[in-house]
Amino acid sequence: MTTQTQSQTQSSPILRPASYISGQWHANAEGQTLVDAVYGRPVAVISSEGVDFAGALAYGRAKGAALRKMTFHTRARALKALGLYLMERKEEYYALNLLTGATRRDGGVDIEGGIGTLLSYSSMARRELPDERFLPEGKVEQLGRGGTFVGRHLLVPREGVAVQINAFNFPVWGMLEKLAPAFIAGMPSLVKPAPQTAYLTERVVRDIIESGLLPEGSVQLVIGEPGDLLDHVREQDMVAFTGSAATAAKLKVHPNLIAHSVPFNAEADSLNASVLGLTVTPDSPEFMLYVREVAREITGKAGQKCTAIRRAIVPSGMVEAVTEALRKELGKVTLGDPARDDVRMGALVSVEQRDRVRQTLEELGRETRVVIGGTESELLGGDREKGAFLDPTVLLCDSPLTATGPHELEAFGPVATLLPYDSLDDAITLARMGRGSLVGSVITHDRAEATELVLGLASTHGRLLVLNREDAKESTGHGSPLPQLLHGGPGRAGGGAELGGIAGVKHHMNKVAVQADPTTLAAITHEFVPGGRVREDVVHPFRKSFDEIQVGDSLLTHRRTVTEADIVNFAGLTGDHFYAHVDEIGAKEGIFGKRVAHGYFLISAAAGMFVSPAPGPVLANYGLENLRFVEPVGIGDTIRTRLTCKRKIRKDLRPDDKQPTGVVEWHSEITNQTGELVATYDILTLVVRARDEFDGSAQNGREAAAQA
Amino acid sequence: MTTQTQSQTQSSPILRPASYISGQWHANAEGQTLVDAVYGRPVAVISSEGVDFAGALAYGRAKGAALRKMTFHTRARALKALGLYLMERKEEYYALNLLTGATRRDGGVDIEGGIGTLLSYSSMARRELPDERFLPEGKVEQLGRGGTFVGRHLLVPREGVAVQINAFNFPVWGMLEKLAPAFIAGMPSLVKPAPQTAYLTERVVRDIIESGLLPEGSVQLVIGEPGDLLDHVREQDMVAFTGSAATAAKLKVHPNLIAHSVPFNAEADSLNASVLGLTVTPDSPEFMLYVREVAREITGKAGQKCTAIRRAIVPSGMVEAVTEALRKELGKVTLGDPARDDVRMGALVSVEQRDRVRQTLEELGRETRVVIGGTESELLGGDREKGAFLDPTVLLCDSPLTATGPHELEAFGPVATLLPYDSLDDAITLARMGRGSLVGSVITHDRAEATELVLGLASTHGRLLVLNREDAKESTGHGSPLPQLLHGGPGRAGGGAELGGIAGVKHHMNKVAVQADPTTLAAITHEFVPGGRVREDVVHPFRKSFDEIQVGDSLLTHRRTVTEADIVNFAGLTGDHFYAHVDEIGAKEGIFGKRVAHGYFLISAAAGMFVSPAPGPVLANYGLENLRFVEPVGIGDTIRTRLTCKRKIRKDLRPDDKQPTGVVEWHSEITNQTGELVATYDILTLVVRARDEFDGSAQNGREAAAQA
Repeated sequence: MTTQTQSQTQSSPILRPASYISGQWHANAEGQTLVDAVYGRPVAVISSEGVDFAGALAYGRAKGAALRKMTFHTRARALKALGLYLMERKEEYYALNLLTGATRRDGGVDIEGGIGTLLSYSSMARRELPDERFLPEGKVEQLGRGGTFVGRHLLVPREGVAVQINAFNFPVWGMLEKLAPAFIAGMPSLVKPAPQTAYLTERVVRDIIESGLLPEGSVQLVIGEPGDLLDHVREQDMVAFTGSAATAAKLKVHPNLIAHSVPFNAEADSLNASVLGLTVTPDSPEFMLYVREVAREITGKAGQKCTAIRRAIVPSGMVEAVTEALRKELGKVTLGDPARDDVRMGALVSVEQRDRVRQTLEELGRETRVVIGGTESELLGGDREKGAFLDPTVLLCDSPLTATGPHELEAFGPVATLLPYDSLDDAITLARMGRGSLVGSVITHDRAEATELVLGLASTHGRLLVLNREDAKESTGHGSPLPQLLHGGPGRAGGGAELGGIAGVKHHMNKVAVQADPTTLAAITHEFVPGGRVREDVVHPFRKSFDEIQVGDSLLTHRRTVTEADIVNFAGLTGDHFYAHVDEIGAKEGIFGKRVAHGYFLISAAAGMFVSPAPGPVLANYGLENLRFVEPVGIGDTIRTRLTCKRKIRKDLRPDDKQPTGVVEWHSEITNQTGELVATYDILTLVVRARDEFDGSAQNGREAAAQA
Repeated sequence: MTTQTQSQTQSSPILRPASYISGQWHANAEGQTLVDAVYGRPVAVISSEGVDFAGALAYGRAKGAALRKMTFHTRARALKALGLYLMERKEEYYALNLLTGATRRDGGVDIEGGIGTLLSYSSMARRELPDERFLPEGKVEQLGRGGTFVGRHLLVPREGVAVQINAFNFPVWGMLEKLAPAFIAGMPSLVKPAPQTAYLTERVVRDIIESGLLPEGSVQLVIGEPGDLLDHVREQDMVAFTGSAATAAKLKVHPNLIAHSVPFNAEADSLNASVLGLTVTPDSPEFMLYVREVAREITGKAGQKCTAIRRAIVPSGMVEAVTEALRKELGKVTLGDPARDDVRMGALVSVEQRDRVRQTLEELGRETRVVIGGTESELLGGDREKGAFLDPTVLLCDSPLTATGPHELEAFGPVATLLPYDSLDDAITLARMGRGSLVGSVITHDRAEATELVLGLASTHGRLLVLNREDAKESTGHGSPLPQLLHGGPGRAGGGAELGGIAGVKHHMNKVAVQADPTTLAAITHEFVPGGRVREDVVHPFRKSFDEIQVGDSLLTHRRTVTEADIVNFAGLTGDHFYAHVDEIGAKEGIFGKRVAHGYFLISAAAGMFVSPAPGPVLANYGLENLRFVEPVGIGDTIRTRLTCKRKIRKDLRPDDKQPTGVVEWHSEITNQTGELVATYDILTLVVRARDEFDGSAQNGREAAAQA
């Protein structure tokens, strides 16, 4: 199959990838001719000539209104549908991927990794965000003693366009990892891929547009030069850039970005380090884990990854063993046309890029020497001259603490430098000489060593991987950013932040502190605020469907006097004979100075007071949060409970849902005879969505409960 | 007393405020002469000539190591002690405050507001942060199906210096609101106050240094020009700036900041708006609340606040009523020497500043007309020519939707412009024409109107106040940033973020994602990670003191079969007769398909299995978190529990603590006979600190429990 692809691409007509701007496709007959990375044959002509960038931004901002009207969950469902749609078409992307010099395995990281990011963000958004257009964050702050003045943070989408300038190495993932969190946040994207591999990005965008799954205007695309794009961004827009540190520095100071305080996020490739622990011996499993990790990072995507290992920091005594093992490992790597099944490593993206790497190798030569590679191995297909091939190369720097090149010069290709060290302090110093990295790794099975290295590297890294025999099987590797974890790093790495789960969504939102009285704050945020007005009704709140319940619906229960019999019976039934409850002598000497009721008796008795026993819309109490026992309850004290609807969480519905449900969070406060608060907590209940569904399938509710 | 102060200052010798650099005070005989704002008399000579800025930064970075070795709580205690120390000396600051043109009331916001920020950060840090050197953030992410590979975010202090460039208007608060979160985070500060009021800042720093309460190197001070300071900042440093948007734009693109990706945070004054709701009538309480708020913002600190109301957005039909009421309100404002008790408003900071405001008033005149002020009222003391006095001035713009000046030109003095509007949409449009503000306010008692305005303004504001009869008494006002809430705003406001509670601390830390196996991640973060190795001991974990307990200490309990009698007895005892437990018919049709045990019975029975009944180090279970009932437990099912120490939270000790305690969080997992998880939760216990304190005062433990 891959061989078929090869012959297909050889006979393919020249592609004319188009920009997608203001709802229209836009291509030019003339433009820059791109050649494939393997044979140097013309593959595409690109040009952004005539694109109205000011218009594109205005269009995106206007169309953003529709996106902002969707809730997080609606957006998440659209993203999931899109992910599945694109996954069905992945083979078309794999075919174009080969032209970029990448193997199918490389392409998997880009293509399926990118589509996977859409699916991950869809699932995180539905799990962790409310089904709302905004996100209340953190706790309610009481700003006055009387409780009439409170504050809370709220996140709302920025009402502009997310301009995304991507690097050539991940034409699919690079686009989708930025687009997914922006879309969930409610911001439309304007994507500007690097020219060299833009035809693959365009193929995916074409499918996105054709799918009709995202609202029009959510994605625009610029193929070719960015023209005067940055002259037109405004306060509510933002710019995210991935590429070289030099270009990042240039764009960051663009006068228009500065004039309008446009947030600029940079992901720059960095001189990432991987440290082999001092405790690792050649016969411990971690030794080969290290060697394979370094080899994989050198050869994967022909080393063109901003997260690749550039500096292998190795105990001095292990340099020879590591070099030998690496030589053996890299010796297995076959170079050539990535369309061939027997090829393990493809070409760099272009001969210009290859020549740049060669140039950097020469500069690195001043302080290092080549210990592996540096020659030209036999090619399995591809063209040595017109293709952008380069053999894996490992350098050794004998005096890494005084050298500068290995910590500053990045050969963005299949190149790494070995840096010997003698103490963990030196290893940390060496890693930090990179002046800030996207990622670092530590290979050791010794937990004390792992702790020392991780804490030593923490301030200069965005991600740190500890690899050892425990996690090796499931490890996703040094070079793989994950949707759940931060992608970005301080200093040289650009100081930016992408992904990181919902944090990546929040980057696209504006945070605002809202101060008001509790009732107004509740109205704005759709969450009950203690101290705010409640609504009491003749209908018990547990007899209302999810749709009927309103935030603030409240029930004040009857009272119950806690007796000695209650405590004794509860101790007997549960087996909890803790002295504070049952031992008159111990309890007197204890912190309460007397026997007190079990805390769990209080919340159980409270449920006894507010539960509505007959079958009804509330199917189950499946969880509890924030429980605090504030004051002890002694024999003879009389308790009652106020239960108030705090929050309604609309659960994601599935097409086969026969009895749709939602989650309702209730705030419960137990007070004693003097009105003093004795316990406070929130309970989570599963509630049938609509009144006419009470008698729906119980089976369905059971599944919903299992999911919750 | 204030009159005394006046005569004192008139006869004071000229101050020579010094820089504090690398542990040394540094002043020059020659320099810039500052005059007081009220009479124009020389007050101080300042100069930073000869200061070694590169050395200062290197010194701060080196000294930072000691700061980073302290835990959050140790830092917090130092900050509290410092706050109390400075509060005792506040009258000295008030005396200097008068020279800046500010009244005692203005000075209160600056001086006591600033010291209060130290105390607030101390208390937030002890309440919300662990007693550690780093901060684990968010949940543990399972990265592989088998649970052997997990990830979590960790925040560690940036290992550089926080350079803080402050504005002239809040010489004390401006310094302390930046210093407090930086110090809690573990970053030393280098403070550069605006020259004009630097003598007051210096007075406070002198006390900070003399107190010896902060480790040497935590605070350095530059009095005078910043010289080549910014040429020497590096990757781990950061710069926070407060001042004009123009200066912010200039500093932000400093080539050295760009070259080293130094984070730059800007707080620029913005054209903040206050909207009077459409529903407010002249006889509703909100009418006068609005008028007084606007008047207070015009006159407080003579309008020299970055958060002041510059644009009063008022329903067209209310403009006349508001103008009349404002005229009356502002008519009460007496101008003059702020040392006099009968003076309500002092001077601007300098005659240069006064002239700048006059110039801006002239420019604003093209699109507005003066409706209040514009003349020179009688002065109560002070010098009209040499003092920087300016009468409160209110402008009216008849066509605010088409005007540009009122939305762009900031008169940084006692000036506001009335902007009439007809619909809420227009009000929102007008407020947004400021292109991003630190704060906005909405004065209305109508919750629907408040909601519409707040959501309409949320994307362009950093803080929004809803003011009405409900919260007026406790409201801290439009112009007051609070330690708990975000201070910053998008666009014109600089796009920065300060304060906001612990978020302000996090701004000074580097976030790193750590990936490892669960046991290693637990060792690094000091928190148990489910799936990680546990430690089983012959000693019951509840028989160990806080100091003896280790994260990972674990107990697997005996088993218990849940019987029909248990369910019946529990229902009878608690009164919880929910059909799923006691109604065979209803339960069969319900989501579990059978009668099941009460969830609270399960956690109570679990406690019965793991509690150690005799008096011992565990004093109380005072809280519970993250409870989820995962699977139902039916009649005949057999449960057991694994209890594992998840986290130790060292509580803040007070000098009079006779029986010190700590909080231990235990992770509990209840499983059934097939090993299936049926419930999972975390409990919080109060545990005596050391073994020899078990028999300490019970009284003391009781107080500790009440605090927890």
